[in-house]
Amino acid sequence: MQGTTEEARAAAYTPTDRTVPTRSADRASYDKELVHAILDEGYVCHLGFVRDGAPVVLPTLYGRVGERLYVHGSTGARALRMTGEADPGLPVCVTVTHVDGLVLARSAFHHSINYRSVVVHGTARQVTDPQEKRAALDALVDHVVPGRAADSRPANKKELAATAVIRLDLDEVSAKVRTGGANDDPEDLALPHWAGVLPLRGGYAAPLPNADLAPGIELPDYLKAL
Amino acid sequence: MQGTTEEARAAAYTPTDRTVPTRSADRASYDKELVHAILDEGYVCHLGFVRDGAPVVLPTLYGRVGERLYVHGSTGARALRMTGEADPGLPVCVTVTHVDGLVLARSAFHHSINYRSVVVHGTARQVTDPQEKRAALDALVDHVVPGRAADSRPANKKELAATAVIRLDLDEVSAKVRTGGANDDPEDLALPHWAGVLPLRGGYAAPLPNADLAPGIELPDYLKAL
Repeated sequence: MQGTTEEARAAAYTPTDRTVPTRSADRASYDKELVHAILDEGYVCHLGFVRDGAPVVLPTLYGRVGERLYVHGSTGARALRMTGEADPGLPVCVTVTHVDGLVLARSAFHHSINYRSVVVHGTARQVTDPQEKRAALDALVDHVVPGRAADSRPANKKELAATAVIRLDLDEVSAKVRTGGANDDPEDLALPHWAGVLPLRGGYAAPLPNADLAPGIELPDYLKAL
Repeated sequence: MQGTTEEARAAAYTPTDRTVPTRSADRASYDKELVHAILDEGYVCHLGFVRDGAPVVLPTLYGRVGERLYVHGSTGARALRMTGEADPGLPVCVTVTHVDGLVLARSAFHHSINYRSVVVHGTARQVTDPQEKRAALDALVDHVVPGRAADSRPANKKELAATAVIRLDLDEVSAKVRTGGANDDPEDLALPHWAGVLPLRGGYAAPLPNADLAPGIELPDYLKAL
């Protein structure tokens, strides 16, 4: 029995007051595998923090290593300055959202989007251990393009000093997912409006080599694969 | 002269302490036309507010009408419950981000993304005027698919009562834009790593009609055009 309980504990985050949504609770999930998959598919999060009592939401790059999220930025950036090691840390909310499709219903009211999102609540702290900082920066680059960290010049001492990295433990976490078609009321089904889903195409257009790219450098395979 | 001053005032938002970024200030803009264009291209924003002293960031649909942003949701939703008309309103930050491309530099440090974002600070208030509420809901639907509001059943009284709409004046607003290729340091230009931009393709895949779509309903032209 204990084995089962521990397995269940490991497989899901524990819901809290603020990770249980007040609506569409059926779309919420605490499954770690799902949360990790949503996080690993993205690279831009929206980082929220409180400054002078008011909310601030900024888009920024992130990476995941195990049960930790990392966000980086200039040491001069406002949010990162607010997370000095001596401080008790900065309460943050990090949200990652993938839009998968537009849901067109016959009724304006039932229009929606198909999406997968993860919301992480917690306290952000500056990463000071050099090894953890390097691993976090590799994760950030590999989130943008898997395999890229190994194919670029690693940060030197000056760059590391100019970069602040903050970490956020994945502890108070929830995912929310909507899939499927339009859910119109039965009395609307015969209305003469098209209903269905417009899936987002995603993916990348042809790569644009830098104007100053040295001759003879071919597009690497990990980019061709995208 | 007065004409020129008024024109300039009308064309740009006034920067404030919190809309002037602490870094990459050269990427910031207060141009209304640019801000409107970025907002009008999207339909999902990240809405930040403060609850029990901690930040909350939720993805949600929005629409713009002139110098106002509208966000809607169930009257039961947490953020919307916090903006009752009797209240002084809810301090919010609404951020809209479009990712245009991945910027791959020779150095890990200079990796970046090309993006266009808008950050709006202000106080959200519930919309109680029925006419304003209807116009806001039309704008929300038309943000998702231009032309769709006119080709769907408008919200009825029950649906209107179940929907809360909040508005946020576009007043304390900034845009931030990054374009172009990788900006490596001169001493890195000869490194054997590919450098350039991977543009995001965007757009939509083939529409998926609802399983319960009545026979004979063709895909409307405004969807074919997407």
